[in-house]
Amino acid sequence: MSIAALNDRIGMVNDVLNSWALLYWDSRTMMPPGGNDTRAKQVSTMKVLAHGLLVADETRRLLDAAETEVANRPAEDADRRIVAQTREAVQHHLKIPADLIRRRAQHASEAAAVWVKARTDSDFSLFAPYLEKTVGMARELADAIGYTGHPYDALMYQFEPGETVTSLRSLFAELRAGIGPVVKATTAVEAPRSDFLERHYEPEKQAAFAKQIAAKLGYDFDRGRLDGTVHPFEISFTRNDVRITTRYYPNFLPASLFGTMHEAGHGLYEQGIDPAYTRTTLATDLVGLYAVGGVSFGAHESQSRLWENHIGRSRRFWDLHYGMLQETFPEALGDVDVAAFHRAINRVRPGYIRVEADELTYDFHIMLRVDIETRLVDGTLKVKDLPEAWNAVIKQELGLDVPNDRLGCLQDIHWSSGQIGTFCNYTIGNVMAAQVLETARAEDPSIQASVDAGNYAPLKDWLTNNIYVHGRRFGRDELLQRITGRTLDPKPYVKYLRDKYTALYGVSV
Amino acid sequence: MSIAALNDRIGMVNDVLNSWALLYWDSRTMMPPGGNDTRAKQVSTMKVLAHGLLVADETRRLLDAAETEVANRPAEDADRRIVAQTREAVQHHLKIPADLIRRRAQHASEAAAVWVKARTDSDFSLFAPYLEKTVGMARELADAIGYTGHPYDALMYQFEPGETVTSLRSLFAELRAGIGPVVKATTAVEAPRSDFLERHYEPEKQAAFAKQIAAKLGYDFDRGRLDGTVHPFEISFTRNDVRITTRYYPNFLPASLFGTMHEAGHGLYEQGIDPAYTRTTLATDLVGLYAVGGVSFGAHESQSRLWENHIGRSRRFWDLHYGMLQETFPEALGDVDVAAFHRAINRVRPGYIRVEADELTYDFHIMLRVDIETRLVDGTLKVKDLPEAWNAVIKQELGLDVPNDRLGCLQDIHWSSGQIGTFCNYTIGNVMAAQVLETARAEDPSIQASVDAGNYAPLKDWLTNNIYVHGRRFGRDELLQRITGRTLDPKPYVKYLRDKYTALYGVSV
Repeated sequence: MSIAALNDRIGMVNDVLNSWALLYWDSRTMMPPGGNDTRAKQVSTMKVLAHGLLVADETRRLLDAAETEVANRPAEDADRRIVAQTREAVQHHLKIPADLIRRRAQHASEAAAVWVKARTDSDFSLFAPYLEKTVGMARELADAIGYTGHPYDALMYQFEPGETVTSLRSLFAELRAGIGPVVKATTAVEAPRSDFLERHYEPEKQAAFAKQIAAKLGYDFDRGRLDGTVHPFEISFTRNDVRITTRYYPNFLPASLFGTMHEAGHGLYEQGIDPAYTRTTLATDLVGLYAVGGVSFGAHESQSRLWENHIGRSRRFWDLHYGMLQETFPEALGDVDVAAFHRAINRVRPGYIRVEADELTYDFHIMLRVDIETRLVDGTLKVKDLPEAWNAVIKQELGLDVPNDRLGCLQDIHWSSGQIGTFCNYTIGNVMAAQVLETARAEDPSIQASVDAGNYAPLKDWLTNNIYVHGRRFGRDELLQRITGRTLDPKPYVKYLRDKYTALYGVSV
Repeated sequence: MSIAALNDRIGMVNDVLNSWALLYWDSRTMMPPGGNDTRAKQVSTMKVLAHGLLVADETRRLLDAAETEVANRPAEDADRRIVAQTREAVQHHLKIPADLIRRRAQHASEAAAVWVKARTDSDFSLFAPYLEKTVGMARELADAIGYTGHPYDALMYQFEPGETVTSLRSLFAELRAGIGPVVKATTAVEAPRSDFLERHYEPEKQAAFAKQIAAKLGYDFDRGRLDGTVHPFEISFTRNDVRITTRYYPNFLPASLFGTMHEAGHGLYEQGIDPAYTRTTLATDLVGLYAVGGVSFGAHESQSRLWENHIGRSRRFWDLHYGMLQETFPEALGDVDVAAFHRAINRVRPGYIRVEADELTYDFHIMLRVDIETRLVDGTLKVKDLPEAWNAVIKQELGLDVPNDRLGCLQDIHWSSGQIGTFCNYTIGNVMAAQVLETARAEDPSIQASVDAGNYAPLKDWLTNNIYVHGRRFGRDELLQRITGRTLDPKPYVKYLRDKYTALYGVSV
């Protein structure tokens, strides 16, 4: 069985990438401060070994044999997909010069340190030469990977294969046209109260509540755990061990609440992958070298957003569960009714900071970044002109004057570590969430009825059977085509936002 | 710099072994139950990769070059030791057939499952055929490693290099002669009360107290942490991150107390290794494939025993700290004075179970096991006759009739995972602890004076400078020779036990 031999080999790559993931998780949750330096070396060795195992002659020999074995299978056959995807990943990595990998890694660690200082001092000029180098190497990388349209397409291939600058431009135009008026209309009227969200919320009680909510959504604690970290994240070490984290602010409730639901959504995806795919190419991102089973970063984000926003920020969810929250925090929420609470967690106000943005203005932050990255990569925007360009777009799109670069172009960690090409995933996730959910509701009306009764299992099961279980077997658009009959389509998302926020704010657009 | 290139290479082996260690630590402390199966694969892949990297042609090429570079350095030169030890480890691994490694790993996992059942049912006949196979493979392994005296010497080489059946026999004879009469004398008089140790002790308070004690001994929490596990252990991921665990029984205080001091002793060793040795051969057990910096299992055990027993079970320690313990547990210990407490934690009574044995009878359990393992390996004892042989020795040495195999030859986990040759380390640790401490006190009387004043830093510093800092640079006996002027010598240990227990029990021998 050549395919079994190939799977054993990729299983080792998966083991190494999962060890990388554990080293990372531990460094964020458990590691004592002294461990930093040597941990960085361990983390880097895991990536080097995974890469080495993947491109080794032995893997290619096994791949050749497996390719012969599955050559006559149908196109959708799982083994055939394994072979094709492994081949694609090996080819991808062979295209990138070892010297470029080394230089990028070296530069990333230098740039990250400078970014921290530049951000603290709000001094873009410190970071500019490093970003210049980052952009130069991103361009080198794009040239190595290859592209037919825009060099940025090659960069996105690592996170959102198939997405292009062209496809994004038309997507973004539709979003701007659809959401822009809603932002304008809601901003024109008085914002709802939300001061009570900043009362005292005991972190231990937040943690207990967060666990209850995650379990309610179907997150399986026998194959997972929830911890507190500075930045929430989900990470997995195969479907059998999928961990999530959230953050507990003593004086701000939404962070832990929606952080938990967001990460639980990611977690449900990984926990739901077909057990038969464990340790195989269909549950491993061999291009990005992550032990992730979701098909693309955007598809993954669609599930975190679906559970966080469509379920977790809905009025019905809180009609059902607000009593439990009030019982947990009687002093903070005793005088707040469910309608006020629901309005507060859906408060819309344009702001400078992406990670603090509300559902309605969030995508504008993404469009800004993709636009800027695209222009940096194709050379139509110079690094030195970045702050000015950034601030102009924020003014135009959100009507705000950026007071300094810390609240502007220095806010995100992505560029500090040399990453360019990842931002689009967030908006693709938003779009895909609404599109998929619309189909689920249409296909089986009992799903929404169950959700409305506080039973999330039928929705989870539908998503599992239609998305999660497939792991990386189908590409994102192929998956969308199978489920919804079409590729990425922003209409359901725009409709969802318009309906929700015009109703909530009593405005029309 | 060929030596730098070799160090980079071994650094990767060290990274992999540390990743193995983290996968292990996590599986005992944090992992959700579902993670078991895939974790086992990840753990095994790390060992396979470490082994592969170590014996690869590339390593041997770097080794050849480094060997030339250091050829004219003095014998004790650290780089020369690195080269020699790496060479020795590579040669060792090349001697062992890949097929034997595979068969042993496969057998270990099968045997472990059967042992659990055999132990639960107290039915040795279930486990016997597996142990037979274990012994057969141990013999194969010994033949592959090679030996001049007894095949058991080859097995001990993996854990306690240089130790032989001949050297152990003379050591054991001296211990029997020296300690035997003390056991007899203390057993003849009434045992002290210890019922109050089984009162209620709130686990959270035990944990807080354990942390204070570990810190007092000098364990650095900036480079470590203490967690609760079923079985206490120490494990490190370089000297920068050295973790310990202990167990918290709500109705038995000594487990957490002495478990903590024991593991903190191991931890002090690893935390004290020369930072310059980090990730090198001098801080990696390349023969056993563990990321351990202590020079042998016995030397490591000497430090856990030194801190646990010589310090932690001394009267002076509790004269200083019993007040703090009483304040932590006023209900359980309010009516117990320090003298009674000290007698209770040093209660001597022969028992069936090694891990529950007191300081005075512990070594008899070890001598029994080494004797039995030796005879199994050289064929003078058949597996089927093991229970009878075991019970006969327990009767002869400790005067007890073993009621069943669960309390007899099925009690230890070691054989279940195929390990033979490790037990001697515990007794060697006891012997070495007393020998080293005697020298420290003689060399610098202020050390004991500080200990008596509750300041453990001078002792820790002396041990660091004389033992910990050297990592694996010197062999165990070479290290002892440098420190005490002689190799392993049981006299200080026998004297310590005789003095302590004749005084405590008011007997003479």
